[in-house]
Amino acid sequence: MAYNLLQGKKGIISGALDEKSIAWKIALKAKEEGATFTLTNAPIAMRMGQINKLAEACGAEIIPADATLVEDIEKLYTRSMEVLGGKVDFVLHSIGMSPNVRKGRSYGDLNYEWFLKSLDISALSFHKMLQVAEKLDAINEYGSVVGLSYIASQRTFPDYSDMAQAKAVLESIARSYGYRYGKLKKVRVNTVSQSPTKTTAGTGVGGFDAFFDYADKMSPLGNASAEECADYVISLFSDLTRKVTMQNLYHDGGFSSSGISEEIVEKMRQ
Amino acid sequence: MAYNLLQGKKGIISGALDEKSIAWKIALKAKEEGATFTLTNAPIAMRMGQINKLAEACGAEIIPADATLVEDIEKLYTRSMEVLGGKVDFVLHSIGMSPNVRKGRSYGDLNYEWFLKSLDISALSFHKMLQVAEKLDAINEYGSVVGLSYIASQRTFPDYSDMAQAKAVLESIARSYGYRYGKLKKVRVNTVSQSPTKTTAGTGVGGFDAFFDYADKMSPLGNASAEECADYVISLFSDLTRKVTMQNLYHDGGFSSSGISEEIVEKMRQ
Amino acid sequence: MAYNLLQGKKGIISGALDEKSIAWKIALKAKEEGATFTLTNAPIAMRMGQINKLAEACGAEIIPADATLVEDIEKLYTRSMEVLGGKVDFVLHSIGMSPNVRKGRSYGDLNYEWFLKSLDISALSFHKMLQVAEKLDAINEYGSVVGLSYIASQRTFPDYSDMAQAKAVLESIARSYGYRYGKLKKVRVNTVSQSPTKTTAGTGVGGFDAFFDYADKMSPLGNASAEECADYVISLFSDLTRKVTMQNLYHDGGFSSSGISEEIVEKMRQ
Amino acid sequence: MAYNLLQGKKGIISGALDEKSIAWKIALKAKEEGATFTLTNAPIAMRMGQINKLAEACGAEIIPADATLVEDIEKLYTRSMEVLGGKVDFVLHSIGMSPNVRKGRSYGDLNYEWFLKSLDISALSFHKMLQVAEKLDAINEYGSVVGLSYIASQRTFPDYSDMAQAKAVLESIARSYGYRYGKLKKVRVNTVSQSPTKTTAGTGVGGFDAFFDYADKMSPLGNASAEECADYVISLFSDLTRKVTMQNLYHDGGFSSSGISEEIVEKMRQ
Repeated sequence: MAYNLLQGKKGIISGALDEKSIAWKIALKAKEEGATFTLTNAPIAMRMGQINKLAEACGAEIIPADATLVEDIEKLYTRSMEVLGGKVDFVLHSIGMSPNVRKGRSYGDLNYEWFLKSLDISALSFHKMLQVAEKLDAINEYGSVVGLSYIASQRTFPDYSDMAQAKAVLESIARSYGYRYGKLKKVRVNTVSQSPTKTTAGTGVGGFDAFFDYADKMSPLGNASAEECADYVISLFSDLTRKVTMQNLYHDGGFSSSGISEEIVEKMRQ
Repeated sequence: MAYNLLQGKKGIISGALDEKSIAWKIALKAKEEGATFTLTNAPIAMRMGQINKLAEACGAEIIPADATLVEDIEKLYTRSMEVLGGKVDFVLHSIGMSPNVRKGRSYGDLNYEWFLKSLDISALSFHKMLQVAEKLDAINEYGSVVGLSYIASQRTFPDYSDMAQAKAVLESIARSYGYRYGKLKKVRVNTVSQSPTKTTAGTGVGGFDAFFDYADKMSPLGNASAEECADYVISLFSDLTRKVTMQNLYHDGGFSSSGISEEIVEKMRQ
Repeated sequence: MAYNLLQGKKGIISGALDEKSIAWKIALKAKEEGATFTLTNAPIAMRMGQINKLAEACGAEIIPADATLVEDIEKLYTRSMEVLGGKVDFVLHSIGMSPNVRKGRSYGDLNYEWFLKSLDISALSFHKMLQVAEKLDAINEYGSVVGLSYIASQRTFPDYSDMAQAKAVLESIARSYGYRYGKLKKVRVNTVSQSPTKTTAGTGVGGFDAFFDYADKMSPLGNASAEECADYVISLFSDLTRKVTMQNLYHDGGFSSSGISEEIVEKMRQ
Repeated sequence: MAYNLLQGKKGIISGALDEKSIAWKIALKAKEEGATFTLTNAPIAMRMGQINKLAEACGAEIIPADATLVEDIEKLYTRSMEVLGGKVDFVLHSIGMSPNVRKGRSYGDLNYEWFLKSLDISALSFHKMLQVAEKLDAINEYGSVVGLSYIASQRTFPDYSDMAQAKAVLESIARSYGYRYGKLKKVRVNTVSQSPTKTTAGTGVGGFDAFFDYADKMSPLGNASAEECADYVISLFSDLTRKVTMQNLYHDGGFSSSGISEEIVEKMRQ
């Protein structure tokens, strides 16, 4: 069901790799809701993914950009404003990668170059997307910027490793830049802390199935799906949420507020 | 602008006193978005207020109910289901009153009967609206229940007195009953922690103007208005937010995440 | 090992029922650390308990008091100041009881008289101990007041029922009264959120063993014991923590910051 | 007054620059409480500071170390264990520097090399001190590791710039490594979120006086001093707090739980 919630709105959506991606679902949903937007991903991710299919379905141009490079982000905004015919109203940041996780380094044996790389790719890129936007004056008043996060920023999930720190930085940038951009242009900046989601990226984390299952059993509504996340993010891009800013918003079926659940009690009794 | 976000949805809205009320704005907005609903308030509040005007504008029946009385709440649901032709999809709790605040008792000189009264009226009424709904099976699957809160539940605002405790209970009930109702019927339960708002009730609190002004200066987007709160609550009643539950959601222009602001720094320098 | 941390300090310790009680351990430890104090409990609890044994070991007078009665609390302070020869430096609140839990009422079938009773006994009593102290000017400057809490105030533990709300009120009172008493007399007020503990009261809650075990497996240091809690509370009564106030302090082996643990992952895989 | 709280304990204290430093006060206090320890600071900081005076007063060896260099940290532990005659029981991390702040870059014009530098110096150094300790098995069972933080990690203080993100990482590492080291060796890891403090480093931040004053007026007990912070950190190094871990502990006179204060209301009315 579509509501025209984003009628006339323009945006930039990063991070759609394949049809399991949350960003992919958000793009489809944004299209349905009347938005026009550009898509972006790292050149390397684009080679592996099927983003062309999505671009076609959405009538969206793809603008490759390495989110760690300021000049790529500058081109992303400049080209987006050309294509879309003006400033954007929303931006999705869905970018994360940890070399330490990927190469299976234990949290007690981190490579520190890689740690900085995790932070640069997964979190500083968020700041760059905001700072470049401000410098180019690329976001309309009352625009909305959303980054995707995970509760590992606040509580320990051992397999999540240095991505916990990356997400902590992401959420902190939302607060710091949200203050600044709010003052300057009424732009709001938030993060959505999403349930573990069976994306190609998500399932790469060790022990994913066990903690997906655990989260599902701990959440009274079950884990939130990628589609549901897309619905929620649309509400944050819409004009219904203009005074929500600098927040980390749990979209997790209740996981974050559950101390224990009957299913887990049952499991413990076995 | 309307989106038909609540097309076909039925609900109950409490707490509309006059046109400054947040609940009043929510009712108008819910109507615009295609919902049908009943209105309720305490018999005494109804005499003072202008709720008939609202009822007419919304084509809504008014069902008086003392929210501290289980039997009144039972009638509220039973009659609502009759009028609306079935179970409800959303419920708004916007009820709060502290005799200690009203009579100007200092926090170091509370009357304990009144303290319990504050909790009963402002918070236990939320539990009653949930427990009665469950017993009568009065809320549809994936229904949404929202209570209005204030950040005094988490940080001290001296003039807010025992209403701080009442709001702490309200938010705690959202978590506890949200767990239960989520499991049972996928019903979600949240509280919205709203900026200080110039309602008839709000402005009754001592020193209101000073802390309204302070909050406004501390919030990068300024205080959220009653209309904006209505927009936000509509998003929480809609199907876009089906996996958000057991949360206390700040709708406050960024106040809750601001440690200090340039305006306040300026003020301190004077 | 004793350090004389409370040398010359006077206090009031409530809630010691038998030797499994946290308050019992705190009393022994406070004695060891050089404090003198009075003990108090509800007349009914005293009949069941073995508090006389403790009183003897500590050279402490027992002053029966129903913590819901202002006049009893007045007598408690007046008599304590007589016995101890002056104002007190520390107060322990370790009082909680829910008729709904005790009688096995489900959270969807609460008796509301009992709900108010839970709040009155377990939380308003904390306010009464503070308000009466202030009125009688019974606490020295830089005094320390501690209430014992549990994480159910912040996250849902289904069996904890309306005690979740009671603890939410307790923690909220610590913030509200902490502000007030801090301004007036530099008195600090905090709550300690303790691991599930095998006390006579604790083990009465349904499913206790399962969630004790769960908490133990989720906490990297394991659950904190009653003795360890006593050590911690002593540090909060001492002069080492004079600027810690209005806080809810987790003493839980890391439970509150653990999202999942390897043991739980293992359990989920079975 | 001394209690012998750290009798027989060995440790490492970083970050003492001059007698205004919090680390300086902690060193003096640790000495008083019976500890032996080594001191460390960056070679460059040592040239400017007066650390020799402190070393003499404490009978402590100074081991220069650049906290961003793993090999320097290895030497720090190895030499400390030689000097102290065994593994250490406590470690203080009091290290922070932001080139962006120092050079007055606005938060909308950050240099990203420097941003990574801020994170590396102020936060990854904490991980390095933990990872190296684990690899060398340099901390005794039940050891205690404390990092100094600031509330800017959780709420926005515009002048704090990218140090907000650095402190967010610091606090996140405490949770992640606290989990790991807790499991392995019962070692606890916490951060202390201290009031703004008139140290040589602190006063370098722009607008320091205004927000020092603001924090003081917002905190019912006033800002916590460096001496008081030392007292508190001693309690965290002692055996009284063995089950406190993965926490960010506010030592701030109540600032973090204050929404507004009467002084600020007064100020707003002017």
